[in-house]
Amino acid sequence: MTAFRALWDSLVEVGRDPVSGGYLRHAWSEPELACREWFVAQARSRDLRLDADGNGNLWATWDAAAIDERPPGTDPSPSAGNAPTPGGDGRPTLGGDGPPTLGGDGSRPRDNGPAPGGDGPALGVVTGSHFDSVPHGGAFDGPLGIVCGFLAIDELRARGAVPVRPITVAAFVEEEGSRFGVACLGSRLLTGAIEPEHARALTDRDGITLATAMAKAGTDPALIGADPGRLAGIHSFVELHIEQGRALADVPAPIGVGSAIWPHGRWRLDFTGEGNHAGTTAMDQRHDPMLTFAYTVLAANKEARLRGAHATIGRVHISPNATNAIPSRVTGWLDARAASSSILEDLVVAVGRRAAERAGRDGTVVSVAAESTSGEVAFSTDLVTRCAALLGADTPVLPTGAGHDAGVLSAFVPTMMLFVRNPTGVSHSPTEHATDDDCVAGVAALAAVLAELACR
Amino acid sequence: MTAFRALWDSLVEVGRDPVSGGYLRHAWSEPELACREWFVAQARSRDLRLDADGNGNLWATWDAAAIDERPPGTDPSPSAGNAPTPGGDGRPTLGGDGPPTLGGDGSRPRDNGPAPGGDGPALGVVTGSHFDSVPHGGAFDGPLGIVCGFLAIDELRARGAVPVRPITVAAFVEEEGSRFGVACLGSRLLTGAIEPEHARALTDRDGITLATAMAKAGTDPALIGADPGRLAGIHSFVELHIEQGRALADVPAPIGVGSAIWPHGRWRLDFTGEGNHAGTTAMDQRHDPMLTFAYTVLAANKEARLRGAHATIGRVHISPNATNAIPSRVTGWLDARAASSSILEDLVVAVGRRAAERAGRDGTVVSVAAESTSGEVAFSTDLVTRCAALLGADTPVLPTGAGHDAGVLSAFVPTMMLFVRNPTGVSHSPTEHATDDDCVAGVAALAAVLAELACR
Repeated sequence: MTAFRALWDSLVEVGRDPVSGGYLRHAWSEPELACREWFVAQARSRDLRLDADGNGNLWATWDAAAIDERPPGTDPSPSAGNAPTPGGDGRPTLGGDGPPTLGGDGSRPRDNGPAPGGDGPALGVVTGSHFDSVPHGGAFDGPLGIVCGFLAIDELRARGAVPVRPITVAAFVEEEGSRFGVACLGSRLLTGAIEPEHARALTDRDGITLATAMAKAGTDPALIGADPGRLAGIHSFVELHIEQGRALADVPAPIGVGSAIWPHGRWRLDFTGEGNHAGTTAMDQRHDPMLTFAYTVLAANKEARLRGAHATIGRVHISPNATNAIPSRVTGWLDARAASSSILEDLVVAVGRRAAERAGRDGTVVSVAAESTSGEVAFSTDLVTRCAALLGADTPVLPTGAGHDAGVLSAFVPTMMLFVRNPTGVSHSPTEHATDDDCVAGVAALAAVLAELACR
Repeated sequence: MTAFRALWDSLVEVGRDPVSGGYLRHAWSEPELACREWFVAQARSRDLRLDADGNGNLWATWDAAAIDERPPGTDPSPSAGNAPTPGGDGRPTLGGDGPPTLGGDGSRPRDNGPAPGGDGPALGVVTGSHFDSVPHGGAFDGPLGIVCGFLAIDELRARGAVPVRPITVAAFVEEEGSRFGVACLGSRLLTGAIEPEHARALTDRDGITLATAMAKAGTDPALIGADPGRLAGIHSFVELHIEQGRALADVPAPIGVGSAIWPHGRWRLDFTGEGNHAGTTAMDQRHDPMLTFAYTVLAANKEARLRGAHATIGRVHISPNATNAIPSRVTGWLDARAASSSILEDLVVAVGRRAAERAGRDGTVVSVAAESTSGEVAFSTDLVTRCAALLGADTPVLPTGAGHDAGVLSAFVPTMMLFVRNPTGVSHSPTEHATDDDCVAGVAALAAVLAELACR
């Protein structure tokens, strides 16, 4: 059994639904807390420095043997290497004076060393991803990046690598937004992209607030918020993730380097007509918004193909949604993504124009409202270029249409991603899969990248 | 104020939702029970013989001054005219020995007279409709036929008409099927089209069974079931109803004669594809059932227009119905109606064929399953011909696409319908409307038809 398979098997059953085979690892739920316990156990077994930030993101750091970056004038703690010292930033850490927020054995994990030039811990080159899943999602989306992070450290240690800066494995909270509705919540809070007060009041489908869910898990929600000191302790961020498409499978190549995240957004399309009796209303006297909606679904598909972009209408609400009633209103949500903001904007305008044209023929009315938009994220050109070269001239460099914590962090620290081949391209589904061989190749690629960034 | 307006106003506020302006008169709900109390009061004020059958349908009979139809060999009760006698068929009636099931004044309404040749009451020429509404439906669909029934009797009496057979106003239960899911439930039970055991177990959205709802309203659900004796007491049935389309408005004409109910049905269309990530799945690698669904919506519309038929897809279910997910499955319900069964069948086959063709292009699978179908109902040619002539040569004779209790009863007794003009054609909506003048014309037409059928 490979080291990958052994570590993977130690996590793979947590939160798996026996019926669907998919995962129910919502942020701060019991299964996700079990994943976090697993993280703590892995960090401790590797003698890594462990802490949690105020937003619940977890960090496990292999401190460098030789820190050579401390700027002049700082007062390095004698423990800058590995020895425990009290945390100095008021943030809850696993090694603080209060009760440990994770783990139940009462032992005190190692405390933070101060970051160079900041008031947060020195984290160095950070890798990692997230534990949480979409409902009935796959095993790989998120956890693969964390598992490979620990294994990459094992590999570097096994080959006697001597990092000159720390290497940290991170686990971010609520990347999918499946529980509280905001994707990349943990990284957004860390970077200050969301107000703490707003975040604490976010509710899940049962009306439970993030604050309540965190408190129930033993994490003080009062400490939610931006953490610039911690960001300052990050040298660079590399997120390894299963590919959520078939680009690598089509090459074929086991590993790719992520260059960018496409700009993307969600638009609500409201089609309003006249509700009426399905049996008795003559066809030429109808104002049926379902027709306008249907035309728009097909038009969005065609317009996206023309532009090499992506358009999807996968969520619909119909009123009154009765078999014998012409609807009075149909609402569809357009998910659109493209290689550039200008292409994306052009796509959405084209879809709206074609919907309006059809509405004129159907005697209906259509309105288009942006619900959320995200501009293009270009990862660090320097990192992408160096790492692609490192991994071999044939390594594909590709953008992705999906959001990731790497997209949030890239505005603050040099960032890139590694993708592991997905044979079917299927993700957010129980059938999401990557082969063991490709995952092992992912560990090797990540180890090479971490060595490149942390050991020279 | 016209007699119509006075009587209409006495009912119009019952069950009206103050927000939507539409009606919430679900079968056996408080508002519908209030309508039934109104029915009892109207029957009593007119000295009509009143009873309820085992299914909760109400009957108010003006017994004929001269019954001339009693077959030889029967033993007419001395009360065959108007005097009270005990009911003889074991059915609960308002004049039975038990407590009255309607009304609270303890008075005993007149009992049934026996039907000619049957063991049920003599009902003669029956008119009427239903009180129950679709959720937030209009004021006219149903109640107009009952109000006009009482007013037509008033008109016949005022002009000194001498019927040779009884004239009865009826109110049928759960015509819309909005509470327990079966349209024309009261008339179907009466005719034996539904098994009592099945009917008693029907549930509403809150899980309340028909049996429980009836018992709560003081009506014994054990007595549900076919009532051939009562059917035998019906000479003919004439249902007056607001038109649910604009055919009369387009002529224009205030009143039309219904000749038939189009064959119609509901088909479930299941479109199955491959759920996947909306952001990352390349357009040419998708199996998106929403595309096949959308194409089918447009194809059904076109195929129906080509055949002068009606096709509607107004109810849809999507899985998982998430903004960032290509659906794995879309289910749409096709409501289709046409002038003949062969046209209807041809229409559904054409829709299924076009859906399958598109599914081949989308890499999806479509299946079509009939959920319910109703064959063509042709009303009594004799009645339609006589009454159309009676109302004037210009009176439109038209089929309807909607189901009615008249459609159920037409297999058992000579049946026809009268339609009152609907200026906008809108029905099943708070804005459903007919003018007072047209409603008054409806009373006159109904009185003429009842005189034609009961007075000669």
